[in-house]
Amino acid sequence: MSTNHITSAGIDFGGTSVKIGLCRGPEIIATAERIPTEEHDGPSSLLDAIVASLKELEIEHGEIFSIGIGVPGLVEADTGFIHGLTNVPGWDNYPLRRILIEKTGLPVVVENDANAMAYAEWKYGAGQDKNNIVALTLGTGVGGGVIINGKPLRGATGTAGEVGQMSIDFQGKVGNYGTHGALEKYMGNQEIAEHAIVKYADIGEAKKVKDCSPRRIAEAAQGGDEIARQIWGDVASWLGTALSSIVWVINPEAIIIGGGIAKAGDLLFDPLKQKLASQLSTVTWNGTDVLPAHFGNEAGIIGSAALAAEEVTQVPAS
Amino acid sequence: MSTNHITSAGIDFGGTSVKIGLCRGPEIIATAERIPTEEHDGPSSLLDAIVASLKELEIEHGEIFSIGIGVPGLVEADTGFIHGLTNVPGWDNYPLRRILIEKTGLPVVVENDANAMAYAEWKYGAGQDKNNIVALTLGTGVGGGVIINGKPLRGATGTAGEVGQMSIDFQGKVGNYGTHGALEKYMGNQEIAEHAIVKYADIGEAKKVKDCSPRRIAEAAQGGDEIARQIWGDVASWLGTALSSIVWVINPEAIIIGGGIAKAGDLLFDPLKQKLASQLSTVTWNGTDVLPAHFGNEAGIIGSAALAAEEVTQVPAS
Repeated sequence: MSTNHITSAGIDFGGTSVKIGLCRGPEIIATAERIPTEEHDGPSSLLDAIVASLKELEIEHGEIFSIGIGVPGLVEADTGFIHGLTNVPGWDNYPLRRILIEKTGLPVVVENDANAMAYAEWKYGAGQDKNNIVALTLGTGVGGGVIINGKPLRGATGTAGEVGQMSIDFQGKVGNYGTHGALEKYMGNQEIAEHAIVKYADIGEAKKVKDCSPRRIAEAAQGGDEIARQIWGDVASWLGTALSSIVWVINPEAIIIGGGIAKAGDLLFDPLKQKLASQLSTVTWNGTDVLPAHFGNEAGIIGSAALAAEEVTQVPAS
Repeated sequence: MSTNHITSAGIDFGGTSVKIGLCRGPEIIATAERIPTEEHDGPSSLLDAIVASLKELEIEHGEIFSIGIGVPGLVEADTGFIHGLTNVPGWDNYPLRRILIEKTGLPVVVENDANAMAYAEWKYGAGQDKNNIVALTLGTGVGGGVIINGKPLRGATGTAGEVGQMSIDFQGKVGNYGTHGALEKYMGNQEIAEHAIVKYADIGEAKKVKDCSPRRIAEAAQGGDEIARQIWGDVASWLGTALSSIVWVINPEAIIIGGGIAKAGDLLFDPLKQKLASQLSTVTWNGTDVLPAHFGNEAGIIGSAALAAEEVTQVPAS
């Protein structure tokens, strides 16, 4: 059933600011001013600001039927309690769903932010016609969300889809949670820059971090720099290793890749596809689409709102 | 709804023989004589023998309501076509489901054998009270099945759950389908034996393959052999690396481990749990049960029959 006529609010709760949009289906029909998290001293004050924004949006754009909020941390699916938000202290073990329902009287969905982004891609983006997808965001770290039969896979403790913590080397670099060879420790923005500095140093060329941002390396590769091209090959090898493990276990119809590093385009996607083709059986590889993400930064708002729209059981006449 | 009153046939289609049992719920109420695959010259003859066995069982034990068959290869979920059976030539692109329905007039479920085993563990075994589990069989190779919300995860091309092909080292040994660091290339029976021979040679002790079967290594470890204990530590490190990747992506409530190598018991499970605890966040590890399989060789029959029982929509009065 289409929910495209339902107006829902999507809230993207980031480490530095909260972004709010009103959506109908994939369209963001209005956005509120960003709310900087640091201006608020804890959950109660910040949530009051969010609710005030929602009320303003409602006055201007009509009734909001439900609210979805994507958070950078663990979500207990049943209760909507949240834990361990990245870069946002003071929210541990917080009953976000209950409090937002109390403050608004509306149905509320709380979801991990990467799952919300994956849902946006599944529902309206690059994964629209698929049952099962895995969506990644490549940036400071590696985020991921898994959609199985059209629903975000949350898992036993809300940590499903943490692709950045997958191991690509049982003797490798140690990730934030102790995993040897955690993918994120190889291909976060910072780690790619460090790898590049070493590679250039090997040929006697001194580079600094700002010369080695993924964007600069992409520009260098496009300009014919052989080392820069090799770096993208290395990134593809690391990422392809983790993705082949995902395919062997989940066998999704599509892997959808977004975030800053994905902007390298073919420089990343071409060697990545080659790597996957070499790591999978022909049948499996032929059944796996590797696609750039359709949405950019707005995926969190759209996905959260889309999940919220699903919660509206009393569908008003369209 | 319980299906324990429905009599279904479970067929475990192995590389050397076909095993058939009649089940009600987790109970195998009767088994037929094993049918050696090599005695039959292709699908038609073998299927006739299977159908004859089923008819005999039915005469002796009453009506069979449905048939489930687990095969060692790829299964197209919608059509029941099978592909690439391990060690069984002549079945490629074979419409197994349709042919068995034609020959018996009964509902037929065709499933990958590891998925059928995982389903048995979920429905009646170690994973009974869980939504999502991953079940492994450790033997010649590493087989696996994933159950999500009580259903086998088949994936886009029927290759979900191929845990043995997951990578634990992006520069590692190459698996059967080209994956660098494929888990199976480290901890199949044969590979463990080869690893043991090298480890003993390093201390000047010559060993042969027959001294280094997983059972012998377990006996040696139990007898206080330090090298043997280290070998189990290595196995736990390899397996734990792949399992931590599974947990980071799927976050199942339980990982269930069976097969010959799992018979090492605490020698394997203790270091494996230590490894997983060190590779996962506390919340995630606390939410992950690591359990020995409840069923042994009979899991394939029970799981296939259980899947078949679910297909009986006209449930007879119990």
